[in-house]
Amino acid sequence: MASKAKVLYEFVAEPGNNELSVNEGEIVTITNQSIGGGWVEAQNSRGEVGLVPEDYVQIIHSQSGGGSVPPLDLSFFDSHASTATSSTTHQVDMGQPETPDTASPDEKTNGSDPWAAFTTDASGGFSNNWAAQPQGTETGRTSTHEAWSSSVQSHPQAYQGPGADDDEWDDEWDDGKSTGGYTEEGGEGGGLNRGAASMKISLNKFPGFSKSGPDLYLLSKQGPKGKEKLPIYRGEVGPVWLYPEGQLDCVVADPKKGSKLYGLKSYIEYQVTPNTTNRPVNHRYKHFDWLYERLLEKFGSVIPIPCLPDKQVTGRFEEEFIKMRMERLQGWMTRMCRHPVISSSDVFQLFHSYKDEKDWKTGKRKAEKDETVGVMVFSVIEPEETLPDLDLLEVEQKCEQFSRFTKAMDDGVKDLLNVGQEHWKRCTGPLPKEYQRIGKAFQNLSSVFNSSGYEGEATLTDALTAAGKTYEDIAQMVAEQPKKDLHFLMETNNEYKGLLGCFPETIGVHKAAIEKVKEGDKLVAASKITAPEKITMTKRASTMSYALQAEMNHFHSNRIYDYNRVMQLYLEEQIKFYETIAEKLRHAHGQFTTM
Amino acid sequence: MASKAKVLYEFVAEPGNNELSVNEGEIVTITNQSIGGGWVEAQNSRGEVGLVPEDYVQIIHSQSGGGSVPPLDLSFFDSHASTATSSTTHQVDMGQPETPDTASPDEKTNGSDPWAAFTTDASGGFSNNWAAQPQGTETGRTSTHEAWSSSVQSHPQAYQGPGADDDEWDDEWDDGKSTGGYTEEGGEGGGLNRGAASMKISLNKFPGFSKSGPDLYLLSKQGPKGKEKLPIYRGEVGPVWLYPEGQLDCVVADPKKGSKLYGLKSYIEYQVTPNTTNRPVNHRYKHFDWLYERLLEKFGSVIPIPCLPDKQVTGRFEEEFIKMRMERLQGWMTRMCRHPVISSSDVFQLFHSYKDEKDWKTGKRKAEKDETVGVMVFSVIEPEETLPDLDLLEVEQKCEQFSRFTKAMDDGVKDLLNVGQEHWKRCTGPLPKEYQRIGKAFQNLSSVFNSSGYEGEATLTDALTAAGKTYEDIAQMVAEQPKKDLHFLMETNNEYKGLLGCFPETIGVHKAAIEKVKEGDKLVAASKITAPEKITMTKRASTMSYALQAEMNHFHSNRIYDYNRVMQLYLEEQIKFYETIAEKLRHAHGQFTTM
Repeated sequence: MASKAKVLYEFVAEPGNNELSVNEGEIVTITNQSIGGGWVEAQNSRGEVGLVPEDYVQIIHSQSGGGSVPPLDLSFFDSHASTATSSTTHQVDMGQPETPDTASPDEKTNGSDPWAAFTTDASGGFSNNWAAQPQGTETGRTSTHEAWSSSVQSHPQAYQGPGADDDEWDDEWDDGKSTGGYTEEGGEGGGLNRGAASMKISLNKFPGFSKSGPDLYLLSKQGPKGKEKLPIYRGEVGPVWLYPEGQLDCVVADPKKGSKLYGLKSYIEYQVTPNTTNRPVNHRYKHFDWLYERLLEKFGSVIPIPCLPDKQVTGRFEEEFIKMRMERLQGWMTRMCRHPVISSSDVFQLFHSYKDEKDWKTGKRKAEKDETVGVMVFSVIEPEETLPDLDLLEVEQKCEQFSRFTKAMDDGVKDLLNVGQEHWKRCTGPLPKEYQRIGKAFQNLSSVFNSSGYEGEATLTDALTAAGKTYEDIAQMVAEQPKKDLHFLMETNNEYKGLLGCFPETIGVHKAAIEKVKEGDKLVAASKITAPEKITMTKRASTMSYALQAEMNHFHSNRIYDYNRVMQLYLEEQIKFYETIAEKLRHAHGQFTTM
Repeated sequence: MASKAKVLYEFVAEPGNNELSVNEGEIVTITNQSIGGGWVEAQNSRGEVGLVPEDYVQIIHSQSGGGSVPPLDLSFFDSHASTATSSTTHQVDMGQPETPDTASPDEKTNGSDPWAAFTTDASGGFSNNWAAQPQGTETGRTSTHEAWSSSVQSHPQAYQGPGADDDEWDDEWDDGKSTGGYTEEGGEGGGLNRGAASMKISLNKFPGFSKSGPDLYLLSKQGPKGKEKLPIYRGEVGPVWLYPEGQLDCVVADPKKGSKLYGLKSYIEYQVTPNTTNRPVNHRYKHFDWLYERLLEKFGSVIPIPCLPDKQVTGRFEEEFIKMRMERLQGWMTRMCRHPVISSSDVFQLFHSYKDEKDWKTGKRKAEKDETVGVMVFSVIEPEETLPDLDLLEVEQKCEQFSRFTKAMDDGVKDLLNVGQEHWKRCTGPLPKEYQRIGKAFQNLSSVFNSSGYEGEATLTDALTAAGKTYEDIAQMVAEQPKKDLHFLMETNNEYKGLLGCFPETIGVHKAAIEKVKEGDKLVAASKITAPEKITMTKRASTMSYALQAEMNHFHSNRIYDYNRVMQLYLEEQIKFYETIAEKLRHAHGQFTTM
């Protein structure tokens, strides 16, 4: 069934790319939604057909099934009936007039595809109460991201402060159907959410997370309170984290729909099963989001904590949407599990191995009260004795080197993503159409030949028809191939784009510390700090540098593994693809005879 | 060196095809001339780049080398120097003011590519004296062609009447550098040759070649004068021509440049070597053209005589141009050799096996005086006794069947040619560019990784660079592939397009004969013919039908062979292509390791 869609933003087609120019407000017919790669095929009123970014159009939903209530714990992967209800929203007014709870219908269908040229940064989709958050300056993490590129993924969710409790959570929608966290008046273009794309939430509320933050650690009087320790060892490649004996692994699986408030609200629950206990625990998306916020708060100064998959991932249909989100949540969890510091942290252990509801709630409150967060995490980092204190120059050089590398890699990754996106479009658009036309032309000619009435015609026509069908098969193979190979290459690079987007902030903290230490003599002269305090600061900057080096070594080692693996996978599938085509053609060839 | 070119006709780009819209009179820069398939890549003044049909632009030549004289008998395949001189024309006024002898510079570079969407039918490029030809009505062969499709190749040359002799020939340019046979005033757009595109020369001057023609044979009093006989036998597939014992074969090779008038005029001479004598004879293009006209005149009512390759074939550079023409002349000769009636005809024997200049001239004059031409060729056709006279209904049914078939095949062939042309464009345009970008993106990322300073980086980067280079190789393979496979598929279909374009005229002669016989009783009643004459007419229509059937059986048998062969060739090359890619990727894959 072809859906109508409203064009949200003007889009100018690039020549030769099978794209369609559309204007804001125009109504188009979606002729193919399964293009993938962040694109849909649309037809305008003049009958012209071409690709437009999925984000730029908003499907116009029929309101059928709006009143039906999905059953509790329905495994909707087997239930297509529930899909119909997913396109309408059920919402009750929670008495917060600043945040009208009519979910924007494009929140899901118009979901920010991270491969699209512009990140729509669909923040605000989660929390009803971000408006109540402190509105700090828009510098810091977010602005640094922007300095790199507008297409860097920024943190999609508003910070969910420690004040939020389970009861409040229960009042919210999640899984992409929650209210927008911004008022409609805040948007532009008649309630369209374009305004949201540039809405950034400052993260400066984390203690010491702003650029002036390193002081807190550099000049802190007290040592760490608890027994928490993050040792750094001298490894073969330089400073390294302490790696656990066994590799933690968590499987994210079995998404189930749940509902509450007599079916007025529904959510998706995922099963998370760690290989340590082999006992599954259930988590909703917002729990993952809570974990993300905890990890970001606690480790963000030293470890890039990649964003969760966008609330609005590609895929209009609920099944596709949930499958894609699950796949990305799995990717995120795997990356967290592989990190020695994160995987062994209390909050991460709690998340995947809590015993019961009480255990979970207690752990949650404890984690939210953790004071060793922000730059204070450096206070528990302990480089082993064989790692001598670094002088400031070394610290600075290392920091510069990492900065250059991550910036360059960010560019390279984005370049590859852009190329991949183009290629995806061609492989699912014009190319298979052409192979299909070649196939049809052969079959057409064959059927003409069949009408010749000449004896022995079949020796040619059977073969020609088979050749034609082969090219139709090839057309289908070409169109389906990107999902088999390019998909993983894109997903991996997309993950890295997310990771790399965290580095400017992390490196910013280190650079601020370096600047602070550089001022050391001046501060001593001005009697703002004592001479011993200055020495402590330098030593602490060295500790910070070891932490960053350990993290970079972890990053490099993972990167080498990941890219080796994804390239192998990509090439394997490409080889299979070309070999299958050659095999099909060989079969077609064998049917021709020369007399 | 990028050439400037003037746009001759408006061209509207088809979206998604990498085409460039251009306006008449616009000056563009040709950025790639070796696209093939009748396209060149051009850039307009706004910097936009895309494909435009080669026919639609006219290269603006520099006049360098205008005075140099190419040496006699220079083998210019080895001489690039002569190429420079080929773009200027040397001409002397031969005292024919109606036909200005300034060769239009676009005659060659803007050559009509038979695959282009519109046939520019560059007639008039050959003869200086067509203006002296009888200007018959524009019905007949040409108009029938037009009824099928505007893209049917029509006869590119003006009919060279029997009055032309060798001396007159010697006064002409040939090989694509002859004068246009139409005055500049006759063209439009400031001397541009658009007018020539629709210029058709009536062939009605052949005795009995017009639609009223069959009377001449149907009602002729006399039997054939000479001993010439064309028997038709009952073969396994129905009526067949008499096939010779051995298969005649002629090799067209070794084009050499000759010149005369102290170098002011130059021409190309091809060596034609038949397998019967194995003794080469030399022929210029205009000799082939003379042969074509003789065959058309003599056998055109019963045998489709395909046009010679256009004077202006694809390829701007002289070497390319001559190579392409030679390839197509070879194709034409091979088809003629394979035809039992043509290959054993006196005129064809003369062409490939004349002993000396005197023999050639005598044979030429004799051929030009042959009276068994046009419909009179049927008078020498003798169906063997086992082939009973057909009644008019059978004759009509056969004729209708052939008409339907050839029309349907014509459509099918043109469809395949269009698809092939599109595919050619994609394979030489956007597709390799994309593979190149993928390759560059991998190599770029690899070079970033190389800067990490991390130990063991080379395990990834060497492999990634190799993978990138592999995709660059693939890009090149993709761009070069059409010349290896699609080329032959296109050439064969193009040949068939030419052949099929002759059928409407041939079938028209038969239909006219059928109509005449249908009127038989009325003509007897009106005493215009006698009753025995009516019986003779019916018998002669039966003979005509047997001839057409024999020809169709020849056509079908050749077609089945040709399509089997070309499909095998195409698929073989396609298989090689995909296997080579798979092999290259397998090699690239082997360089990655997972640790």
